[in-house]
Amino acid sequence: MDRNIRIMIAYEGTRYHGWQRQRTNSNTIQEKLETLLSRMTGETIEINGSGRTDAGVHARAQVANFHTASAMTTEEMRDYMNEYLPSDIAVLKADDAGPRFHARLNATGKIYCYRIWYSPVPNVFERNFLYQFPEKLNEEAMREAAAYFRGSHDFKSFCGNKRMKKSTVREIHDIHMERLGEELRFTITGSGFLHHMVRILVGTLIEVGQERRSPSEMAGILAAGSREEAGFLAPANGLCLQEVQYH
Amino acid sequence: MDRNIRIMIAYEGTRYHGWQRQRTNSNTIQEKLETLLSRMTGETIEINGSGRTDAGVHARAQVANFHTASAMTTEEMRDYMNEYLPSDIAVLKADDAGPRFHARLNATGKIYCYRIWYSPVPNVFERNFLYQFPEKLNEEAMREAAAYFRGSHDFKSFCGNKRMKKSTVREIHDIHMERLGEELRFTITGSGFLHHMVRILVGTLIEVGQERRSPSEMAGILAAGSREEAGFLAPANGLCLQEVQYH
Repeated sequence: MDRNIRIMIAYEGTRYHGWQRQRTNSNTIQEKLETLLSRMTGETIEINGSGRTDAGVHARAQVANFHTASAMTTEEMRDYMNEYLPSDIAVLKADDAGPRFHARLNATGKIYCYRIWYSPVPNVFERNFLYQFPEKLNEEAMREAAAYFRGSHDFKSFCGNKRMKKSTVREIHDIHMERLGEELRFTITGSGFLHHMVRILVGTLIEVGQERRSPSEMAGILAAGSREEAGFLAPANGLCLQEVQYH
Repeated sequence: MDRNIRIMIAYEGTRYHGWQRQRTNSNTIQEKLETLLSRMTGETIEINGSGRTDAGVHARAQVANFHTASAMTTEEMRDYMNEYLPSDIAVLKADDAGPRFHARLNATGKIYCYRIWYSPVPNVFERNFLYQFPEKLNEEAMREAAAYFRGSHDFKSFCGNKRMKKSTVREIHDIHMERLGEELRFTITGSGFLHHMVRILVGTLIEVGQERRSPSEMAGILAAGSREEAGFLAPANGLCLQEVQYH
């Protein structure tokens, strides 16, 4: 009997070359999961992730699915996976999904967090999850600039893939910045994201915070459709995929 | 002019052979700090920590002091240290203490936390700071057993140093256990602690939680004055020195 299993996965991306399986490098999250699922079921398992995450990027709740004829319960699958996965990857849950569920094609939105540690004193305990940035930032200007990105726009200027042939229009449902003690946390919800898009958005907002750019420049950067106009690529370790949304 | 500088230090102990400088191993927190302070001041600096922490044990706020003739401000010292220390050690603050301040001799108490992750699903993000223990525990029995340790007792049964010649009497001001979602957190405040004492206390309480021991056995274990009577040594990574108290 063909079953379609949905899994939710947490990982610290520090040690990995990102989510997606690669020909030249076996050290990816997808490969770790597929190798183990294949061993668990005795079948050749391929999984569909909701989308890629770059090298060094984390996930609190990545979603993936795979097909199998295994008779194991989903709890047995979860426990088997957690017993053999490295300590920086965990399966939070596994369940039987409808036969047509596809983790990538059915995803309707994603929530990403980007965390900046904004203090002269380094954070020792969460250093792998924070971009440590001790310079002073104009938070009000950053909030004002962030508002320009809400809604549907062509984000070509914020796309890391220069040969992107498909549409670069995406919708950002919400982008907000919170101050949590010495942490500055961006939460960005959108229909989907281009390669490097969140990190380039955050890098650009940091440049606004440094007063190297003004908030009103954001409209021109969007209009230009050119990666050169946007800001720097913020480091991967501050980024985390928080949630994948499905209707 | 002789100055007596007090520093507060945070560290993740995972990579180190503990706090204390050793002849045979240079990979200790004390050695990292002394080497850097000596370079910073051009003097040979020795620091007094409030006490040792074992290999793998963390500190949120270890306290130490050292004497120097340096003319640097304490903020300059803090920033210099944080620039050159490895990313798993940070100086949270530095200030001028009175000439007679001694981080170990003047300490009147310490607060330790021990964190257990008590879930069938591993915690990926804080794995270096949690003892992951998926078995069911009788929390009520653990609370009852913990109460036996409050007050002044001879903790010889909970001392990892078998050749301890000095008094093994210590006072525990408070020991309590909280449930924070899937975390079980012990907070233990005392006048001072013997070698491995917190970890053996927690190991013994876990055995009570497993119902391998009853809470009332705690009195007999204390009375026996023998390490063999107490429970296992809980792993170092769950332990963190939270605070050092001074009058």
